[in-house]
Amino acid sequence: MKESLNIIKVGGGIVEDRASLTSLLCQFAAIEGRKVLVHGGGRLATSLASSLGIESRMVGGRRITDEKMLRVVTMVYGGLVNKNVVASLQAKGVKAIGLTGADGNVIRSHKRPLKRVKMDDGTEQMVDFGFVGDVDMVDARLLSELIEGGSVPVVAPLTHDGEGHILNTNADTIASSMACALAEHYEVTLTFCFEKAGVLRDADDDSSVIPSINEEQFKRLAAEGVVSGGMIPKLENAFEALHKGVRQVVITHSDNIDGSRGTIIKEK
Amino acid sequence: MKESLNIIKVGGGIVEDRASLTSLLCQFAAIEGRKVLVHGGGRLATSLASSLGIESRMVGGRRITDEKMLRVVTMVYGGLVNKNVVASLQAKGVKAIGLTGADGNVIRSHKRPLKRVKMDDGTEQMVDFGFVGDVDMVDARLLSELIEGGSVPVVAPLTHDGEGHILNTNADTIASSMACALAEHYEVTLTFCFEKAGVLRDADDDSSVIPSINEEQFKRLAAEGVVSGGMIPKLENAFEALHKGVRQVVITHSDNIDGSRGTIIKEK
Repeated sequence: MKESLNIIKVGGGIVEDRASLTSLLCQFAAIEGRKVLVHGGGRLATSLASSLGIESRMVGGRRITDEKMLRVVTMVYGGLVNKNVVASLQAKGVKAIGLTGADGNVIRSHKRPLKRVKMDDGTEQMVDFGFVGDVDMVDARLLSELIEGGSVPVVAPLTHDGEGHILNTNADTIASSMACALAEHYEVTLTFCFEKAGVLRDADDDSSVIPSINEEQFKRLAAEGVVSGGMIPKLENAFEALHKGVRQVVITHSDNIDGSRGTIIKEK
Repeated sequence: MKESLNIIKVGGGIVEDRASLTSLLCQFAAIEGRKVLVHGGGRLATSLASSLGIESRMVGGRRITDEKMLRVVTMVYGGLVNKNVVASLQAKGVKAIGLTGADGNVIRSHKRPLKRVKMDDGTEQMVDFGFVGDVDMVDARLLSELIEGGSVPVVAPLTHDGEGHILNTNADTIASSMACALAEHYEVTLTFCFEKAGVLRDADDDSSVIPSINEEQFKRLAAEGVVSGGMIPKLENAFEALHKGVRQVVITHSDNIDGSRGTIIKEK
């Protein structure tokens, strides 16, 4: 029988707020057994960029990463956020080890080609996202060696192309890709935690959590517009992970990463 | 018999210059067998700090690290420099893995207490260096596990205090401390490389390299003023490492990290 592995993804909104981050790291430290933390850090990058006079450009919720912005995200995600999270976890007795996809060649990606994107005004445009990586391969070997040695990987949303370039990569995608690759070795539960209580019927009402969603229900909820915006790619990612062998995906508030509340995503 | 291990320390002056860094990484990739790279990055931190309107203050060649500067060095050393070096080495087939002392609890330190420092004008002052770490402990276990698994640690000059704080730590000290801890498992050669050809009789003449120095000669050269400034702590560090079991210390130009030229530091 495979051992259980918890992969927790925490978004930039939690990471940038000291109280939320502290609460999340306490809960994460309390999770027993094998675990991995994947973090974002988006708004901290926006804030550093702004201090440096670099404009942040977003299209369809994704950051345009030119050369200057790549330096910023490498510093913020790989340095500031990752190292502070690692040091905080160490203080709580967690043998955290910070990684980007470049470290140990853990996550290889390629620079995203020009992509047709639907804009807010309904038109479509070809967009160059710049130094953004689409994941090609996760090497589960080094990851599972580290995990079996008692280490807890803390993964920043950066990958590399194998030709010497760091690429900015969506943290949700990293978490899903890792979950799929590690599903070969473990019974993986993948938890996305953020500022809401789960997938909500009413975005403004945290008590309207939908306790579980299967793929058929998702399609209906999306068609009805109950599920929309950034939640759609999150759920699409979740179903893809389930198709690829991940045991369970949970979407929940950062205060409940033990999976006791929130929305459970199921295949059927 | 112990296996050989090469620990190469490269200073900020090399790291900030793209051509020098590329040349150094090519040579580093060509070194066969077990190896570790420790990097500085000082002037890049100064430059980012300056862009952010943060003043860099140095006393006795060491940076004063207040809270803002700690954020800067965490971003620059742990993120920008470390991750780009790792990605470049991966492209050359080196299975590099970036680490700070916080990662895997590899290097534990404590915040430096107020310290009496001789100023440029000859007076002495008590100086608070801020968030600067003096090394307490290097955990050779995880490091040697990584090395035996074929990984090549790339170490940034940051440590942690075990209580959740990152501390800025001199890269020479990190290299020596790691060399001493790893000397228990390996025959360690510790190479410091920088912009000069080695320890020079005449600071302006790269052909005046002193091929080897033992401790007695060092004391004489220091007394005569031939060796001065930043070279003195470098050599003191070197002798301490030799006393603690490091096989050989080399000080050389970044173009010659194979040890074919430069100054060899010997105990006797």
